[in-house]
Amino acid sequence: MVDSEFQPKSGNESPRFAMPSTFMRLPSRESAKGLDVAIVGVPLDIGTSNRSGTRNGPREIRDESRLLRPVNLTTLQAPFDCLKIADVGDVPINTYDLRKSIDLIDGFHARIAKQGAAPLTLGGDHTISYPIVRALSLLHGQLALVHVDAHTDCNDAMFGEAMTHGTWVRRAVEERLIDPRRTAQIGIRGTTYTGPDCTYGEEQGFTMLHAEDCWHRSISRDMDRIRSIIGEGPAYLSFDIDGIDPAFAPGTGTPEPGGLTSMQGIEIVRGCRGLNLVGADIVEVSPPWDSGRITSLLAATIAFEILCALPGVEAA
Amino acid sequence: MVDSEFQPKSGNESPRFAMPSTFMRLPSRESAKGLDVAIVGVPLDIGTSNRSGTRNGPREIRDESRLLRPVNLTTLQAPFDCLKIADVGDVPINTYDLRKSIDLIDGFHARIAKQGAAPLTLGGDHTISYPIVRALSLLHGQLALVHVDAHTDCNDAMFGEAMTHGTWVRRAVEERLIDPRRTAQIGIRGTTYTGPDCTYGEEQGFTMLHAEDCWHRSISRDMDRIRSIIGEGPAYLSFDIDGIDPAFAPGTGTPEPGGLTSMQGIEIVRGCRGLNLVGADIVEVSPPWDSGRITSLLAATIAFEILCALPGVEAA
Amino acid sequence: MVDSEFQPKSGNESPRFAMPSTFMRLPSRESAKGLDVAIVGVPLDIGTSNRSGTRNGPREIRDESRLLRPVNLTTLQAPFDCLKIADVGDVPINTYDLRKSIDLIDGFHARIAKQGAAPLTLGGDHTISYPIVRALSLLHGQLALVHVDAHTDCNDAMFGEAMTHGTWVRRAVEERLIDPRRTAQIGIRGTTYTGPDCTYGEEQGFTMLHAEDCWHRSISRDMDRIRSIIGEGPAYLSFDIDGIDPAFAPGTGTPEPGGLTSMQGIEIVRGCRGLNLVGADIVEVSPPWDSGRITSLLAATIAFEILCALPGVEAA
Amino acid sequence: MVDSEFQPKSGNESPRFAMPSTFMRLPSRESAKGLDVAIVGVPLDIGTSNRSGTRNGPREIRDESRLLRPVNLTTLQAPFDCLKIADVGDVPINTYDLRKSIDLIDGFHARIAKQGAAPLTLGGDHTISYPIVRALSLLHGQLALVHVDAHTDCNDAMFGEAMTHGTWVRRAVEERLIDPRRTAQIGIRGTTYTGPDCTYGEEQGFTMLHAEDCWHRSISRDMDRIRSIIGEGPAYLSFDIDGIDPAFAPGTGTPEPGGLTSMQGIEIVRGCRGLNLVGADIVEVSPPWDSGRITSLLAATIAFEILCALPGVEAA
Amino acid sequence: MVDSEFQPKSGNESPRFAMPSTFMRLPSRESAKGLDVAIVGVPLDIGTSNRSGTRNGPREIRDESRLLRPVNLTTLQAPFDCLKIADVGDVPINTYDLRKSIDLIDGFHARIAKQGAAPLTLGGDHTISYPIVRALSLLHGQLALVHVDAHTDCNDAMFGEAMTHGTWVRRAVEERLIDPRRTAQIGIRGTTYTGPDCTYGEEQGFTMLHAEDCWHRSISRDMDRIRSIIGEGPAYLSFDIDGIDPAFAPGTGTPEPGGLTSMQGIEIVRGCRGLNLVGADIVEVSPPWDSGRITSLLAATIAFEILCALPGVEAA
Amino acid sequence: MVDSEFQPKSGNESPRFAMPSTFMRLPSRESAKGLDVAIVGVPLDIGTSNRSGTRNGPREIRDESRLLRPVNLTTLQAPFDCLKIADVGDVPINTYDLRKSIDLIDGFHARIAKQGAAPLTLGGDHTISYPIVRALSLLHGQLALVHVDAHTDCNDAMFGEAMTHGTWVRRAVEERLIDPRRTAQIGIRGTTYTGPDCTYGEEQGFTMLHAEDCWHRSISRDMDRIRSIIGEGPAYLSFDIDGIDPAFAPGTGTPEPGGLTSMQGIEIVRGCRGLNLVGADIVEVSPPWDSGRITSLLAATIAFEILCALPGVEAA
Repeated sequence: MVDSEFQPKSGNESPRFAMPSTFMRLPSRESAKGLDVAIVGVPLDIGTSNRSGTRNGPREIRDESRLLRPVNLTTLQAPFDCLKIADVGDVPINTYDLRKSIDLIDGFHARIAKQGAAPLTLGGDHTISYPIVRALSLLHGQLALVHVDAHTDCNDAMFGEAMTHGTWVRRAVEERLIDPRRTAQIGIRGTTYTGPDCTYGEEQGFTMLHAEDCWHRSISRDMDRIRSIIGEGPAYLSFDIDGIDPAFAPGTGTPEPGGLTSMQGIEIVRGCRGLNLVGADIVEVSPPWDSGRITSLLAATIAFEILCALPGVEAA
Repeated sequence: MVDSEFQPKSGNESPRFAMPSTFMRLPSRESAKGLDVAIVGVPLDIGTSNRSGTRNGPREIRDESRLLRPVNLTTLQAPFDCLKIADVGDVPINTYDLRKSIDLIDGFHARIAKQGAAPLTLGGDHTISYPIVRALSLLHGQLALVHVDAHTDCNDAMFGEAMTHGTWVRRAVEERLIDPRRTAQIGIRGTTYTGPDCTYGEEQGFTMLHAEDCWHRSISRDMDRIRSIIGEGPAYLSFDIDGIDPAFAPGTGTPEPGGLTSMQGIEIVRGCRGLNLVGADIVEVSPPWDSGRITSLLAATIAFEILCALPGVEAA
Repeated sequence: MVDSEFQPKSGNESPRFAMPSTFMRLPSRESAKGLDVAIVGVPLDIGTSNRSGTRNGPREIRDESRLLRPVNLTTLQAPFDCLKIADVGDVPINTYDLRKSIDLIDGFHARIAKQGAAPLTLGGDHTISYPIVRALSLLHGQLALVHVDAHTDCNDAMFGEAMTHGTWVRRAVEERLIDPRRTAQIGIRGTTYTGPDCTYGEEQGFTMLHAEDCWHRSISRDMDRIRSIIGEGPAYLSFDIDGIDPAFAPGTGTPEPGGLTSMQGIEIVRGCRGLNLVGADIVEVSPPWDSGRITSLLAATIAFEILCALPGVEAA
Repeated sequence: MVDSEFQPKSGNESPRFAMPSTFMRLPSRESAKGLDVAIVGVPLDIGTSNRSGTRNGPREIRDESRLLRPVNLTTLQAPFDCLKIADVGDVPINTYDLRKSIDLIDGFHARIAKQGAAPLTLGGDHTISYPIVRALSLLHGQLALVHVDAHTDCNDAMFGEAMTHGTWVRRAVEERLIDPRRTAQIGIRGTTYTGPDCTYGEEQGFTMLHAEDCWHRSISRDMDRIRSIIGEGPAYLSFDIDGIDPAFAPGTGTPEPGGLTSMQGIEIVRGCRGLNLVGADIVEVSPPWDSGRITSLLAATIAFEILCALPGVEAA
Repeated sequence: MVDSEFQPKSGNESPRFAMPSTFMRLPSRESAKGLDVAIVGVPLDIGTSNRSGTRNGPREIRDESRLLRPVNLTTLQAPFDCLKIADVGDVPINTYDLRKSIDLIDGFHARIAKQGAAPLTLGGDHTISYPIVRALSLLHGQLALVHVDAHTDCNDAMFGEAMTHGTWVRRAVEERLIDPRRTAQIGIRGTTYTGPDCTYGEEQGFTMLHAEDCWHRSISRDMDRIRSIIGEGPAYLSFDIDGIDPAFAPGTGTPEPGGLTSMQGIEIVRGCRGLNLVGADIVEVSPPWDSGRITSLLAATIAFEILCALPGVEAA
Repeated sequence: MVDSEFQPKSGNESPRFAMPSTFMRLPSRESAKGLDVAIVGVPLDIGTSNRSGTRNGPREIRDESRLLRPVNLTTLQAPFDCLKIADVGDVPINTYDLRKSIDLIDGFHARIAKQGAAPLTLGGDHTISYPIVRALSLLHGQLALVHVDAHTDCNDAMFGEAMTHGTWVRRAVEERLIDPRRTAQIGIRGTTYTGPDCTYGEEQGFTMLHAEDCWHRSISRDMDRIRSIIGEGPAYLSFDIDGIDPAFAPGTGTPEPGGLTSMQGIEIVRGCRGLNLVGADIVEVSPPWDSGRITSLLAATIAFEILCALPGVEAA
């Protein structure tokens, strides 16, 4: 049983809308030392191609996470009883230089990983997953990837740039940070520039679950299949909130109608239970475009479900 | 056939956005005398634990109800041809004192019930269901309860207080206002403080339909089952708009992703047809957090569907 | 292969949020001469009965269409490789006089049709479909109609007026502009003034697919049936965004909870592939009531899917 | 002393956000019989040239008027102790036909005037002032006009139409409804189509107070001058909320930066005390474009200050 | 020179939108021990009479305070070089019981005061000033009061309740917590229930500066006068954001048009320099009603200006 | 007299909300050849330090400019009768790389200038003024600068970067692009990192007009002084919308309370008449943070006033 110091502040101790404004009102820590999981923020939005605003994501996700209570009502899991979890704050990115920021994100996550903690990172635009995966794969070896998204993020370049929120998966494949045969993309849909672009993943061996494949039904079974494909090696979960339909997640930069539902989003995360997750992120929440803060709240909920899916969190 | 005086003002008489701003532009009445159904507002939000704003609920639900026409297009029911329905205004709550307000709400509804009318109450936070149920059970005896909600509202206390929007169901059970064996909770999900809390209802004999049990499918069959469990005794329907997913109902105080759809919400209300409903409420609409007023409109629609589900409203 | 002059400006040429603000950043043309498809705007909102604001629809749909790329990721169709498509701007309606505006819309579309182009029209309230259908039926003969909507638009009059956004379908039937036996209405729901009103379409021989018939499932099969009923004659698709549920499309004037999902909306349009579409519209987007511009984006996406469903666009 | 029946419902009787939602929670009356002042709504927006939405104005102004208490804290005037004032609801306009609506508005106000009450009308777009002035001048003879506005509303035609929100003053001059030598326009600014247009009023003998003349200072002295020009004959006050700067009144259809402040708006109304006002309006509030409902609240406040400026309301 | 540990985190160390989300990104402290000034939050909104939402005030003011830099550009004051200032978090109020909350607020501030720090409190509705003043006057003796507000807060009761956001000043006078002859109220305006109510303060000897007295001009001279009236005894500054006009501060619960400008608000605070301030608050910020977060930002700026006005902060 | 081809499309030709969505519905041109003034957009926001979103500025300013008519009602100037003005679209910036974007902006403006046109540029964050000034000074020689802003933009570096929206003025001084003795900064206020930073401009010889110097009064006289200081050499006007107070311009990235009013903003631009302006910009409009689009409308109005202030536009 984990020390009570790592319990979220309860709504019965002080109202939910009171301080501290860390994730779920967890304790704040300077470093990940002694932690099992480190909650990290990366307030980046200069890697995005359509609407900006994800720089405000980490603060708003933390703010809305105040509503969450420590036990999963459905699964009865209690992650804070099983793991030492704290909020280690934000990566001090350079908001004027994307490449420097990528190195800062890599360094920050490398430190966390070396201290033995799994990072759960709140974005920020999707560019941030590249340096995180780079840092984690250096320690853990090539990673499996569960990638929820409306977009494949497999463009070769955007406006001539190799490193953006739409190219990071291709870079991760090329640099062997992730194992394409143990990579699954879920929620892909919409439009693309040319035919070949959207088949890149399939050629690499990705398991593809287009949004259309998911419509009107549960995808828990698909997650069983994905788990069996991925197996026991180190895995990473990257959850782009735009994988979810704009009705459920309006506050994002490149929304695409016809997406997954929040329910399917939760099914995906619960379906990751059993994987050897060494890190995860929830990205692309853009508060200025949100309504009633429902996107931030959904992201906070997904983040909590990720905590429940981590190795070491026992089922009730 | 009911007197034409109790018909909503038609959009062909004056535009929908014109006066009066009673529910569905029904006549306004000082008391429930002579009515079959009394529409009541309770603009309370001091019983809430996260975001406030439900004090503005009754006015906005009434405002958005302007769009509703008197015949249910699907069921062809015409409640205003079958029942005398008017808007009796708002309970003059004391906005600084929750306990005094509870007594004011109880008194107001007791009067309505004694005058022979069924109250259909527009909230306000969920605390209001406690005094309503107390008033109605005094007249009708112990009630069956159909309870749509993300939360069980079965906490023993919140911040040490026995009476809040999160404890009212437990109080109603303890005081034998409702019959736990004829109580159904639908839409429950999310997180909780401790394991035992969320099993309270099951121990009492509640019929539980978690949100997850409802995902991706019709729940009309489940309503058949619930109706047969409840049987013919007096019943109450309490519809917390946060039972519905935040995509459909963002304007609420304690939203929880992964909820019921509006479609399922309508199925539930239609599935109550045949019950001996002696009152109903639709609560927790918080307009300051709404987007495009869709939550108020949904609440108004649910309220109309409740009218169609009342005893005495004939099928077409 | 169509000339590259008719390609949308790519996000790799200039950022998506840069000029031009035509539909999908297509070229702007003064007339439809030489075009296969003409994108038209009709910024009308004086035919509406509840909330106004659709006058801002065409500009916002065009603005949000910036996110769309030229290839359909799912069907791999590339409409701009198959058809010459440009944006011909807005009909110069008279915003103070509904009847004059109807004639202006008719004349504008008649010219487009005579120049050999199919109009894809961005509304504007639904009144605009009447003059478009009138103009097209004059050239093509009586039309089949696929009509997505929450409302039948078959009122005889509204506030005594024969021509409004709620009466246009009845007028089109009476004037034999559309063939009622080859007319399908999808998404109908909500409330109505009297029983008979809502059975008008059935009496005329319409194929009706109520919203309730569509809940929780795919409607692709229903579209197969509708296609076989309509057959090979000239057909028109009129897509009222309020056919879609307010969660997915809050920005509209007469929203009705319990509607179609965006996913079903896309299924409908894809299900129109194979019809002899001679024109189409997407109407009733009201930006002042939108949240995060998701309704405008959905409308832009539906418009793109319509382009993919047009005769002459080959499957990949 | 006026009967207590005509007192607004106090916030100590029921909370401000509770029913009724008449203006200032005054009693609702079917007709103006026996009243000194009738509060009227005209939910019209089809006479507007830029952004629509004023159809929602009357309901929102009434809603926000809940905050107002019966005594003017500065002048200590208590209009409800001096005059019998009630809310007579909305004119049942025809939302599809501007000309028919003009006649409906005229007839409604003629009836009020004949019953001996002064109308205080909540708009709606500015077109409504024409039929009101027409009705009142028929009874009272040619009227003086105090006209607060960003625009002169002296266009000869808009899009070829003689009667719109931008032409009504010229029509009123031409038809001798108002006396141009006893007409003052305050707040005029911005841009215009041609030079001559903006000098029309001056040629007619209007007293002009451009916004620039008012910047950075009190305009109470100017009101003294205007009062002396107008003298003792019957006068009408037409207050277009867009006379006020968009910072103070964002919720309007044709906002123009560089306008009057709210403080100056109040000075104008207080400066009308002593005029023989036979009616007044506050128009062009467009709630869908408002922020935090501050425009509706300002309009409600202006309406209350108008009540205090009416003949018969004694100074404290 | 104060230790660098008490400097706000600079925007050159980590971007402004990154953690920590304390006031101005100051260090967080468990207690006020060793501090000169303690920043406190009180997330209360159950003492309010119109619109709720101030419970979200402290978090949002802190969030927007991220933009503030440590040196006052105009006065060149650098409060963090002169005083030890930290953020001690929020009072754990009881959100269901106003009276219990009042005692919790009193106790929290009494502790701070005893530890030798001056509290700068972020509200929360204005009820909170009563327990703060009670706690401080116990230690420092009767206080002078500079009270910026649209309302006198001198009602005897609201809805029968003695303790609300509209009665606290009268209670503080009656209990001799404040010295009425050294009390100034600035910004008073609007409407009231009865004549006598609004003269209460004058009868007690308050210095009154109505909003109208302030329009269109600097009020620095008035502050000189107020400072000379107050003299050298302990003083408290209570700044209700609704003293400021809704154009500048829309996000509040009881907005009143015709108020002070932000510029005058800053003049007031700068005019308090030289007073022996033993505490201060900025209250009534209601984020759900804000636009573009400008009210929270203004409140954060006022709070910073208060820091500059405190005894011990040297002029540059 | 300029050819009618360069007149904005009138609201009497097609409604204001109809196409085209160029600035003021002017003609669109591929290049500046033959133009006197070229309207340019620069949709950049990656040079900003607090809130992003200015990438959406150019489109929204153009959209709201639809309300503007061609004649200045106050000055009776008619810029389109005097100058050939068209909209040349947006600079195709690289949204992932600030330095590359700076060169793209420079090149685009250099071409315009060489073609003999003065650029009027719609931003975009303030970084864009650096490359514009660089391009123009190469052609015209060292420039005078009228700089409206809350901030001096004279930081040496931000987060170690030499080129951001907060450093551009210092760079322009260092590289002798602007003449510090003929540079005026208006509206400066708020907070800063260190004392010396904010005196940099004064040391260089800038004329400083702090916001506080402007409060409560006209600044036309100050503009007379500034004009005489600047004299007849080539001059540039850079108007950061955050120079204006957040009440009037909430939609911006680094708002600072206590700023200039819109009225003063217009006085500044009118006060530039007589200067030899070779270019101008209006920057930092961030639509996602705007309310009721009033910031975009103000920016459009400022842009129109700039057109009226250009050499060659005759007074009426």
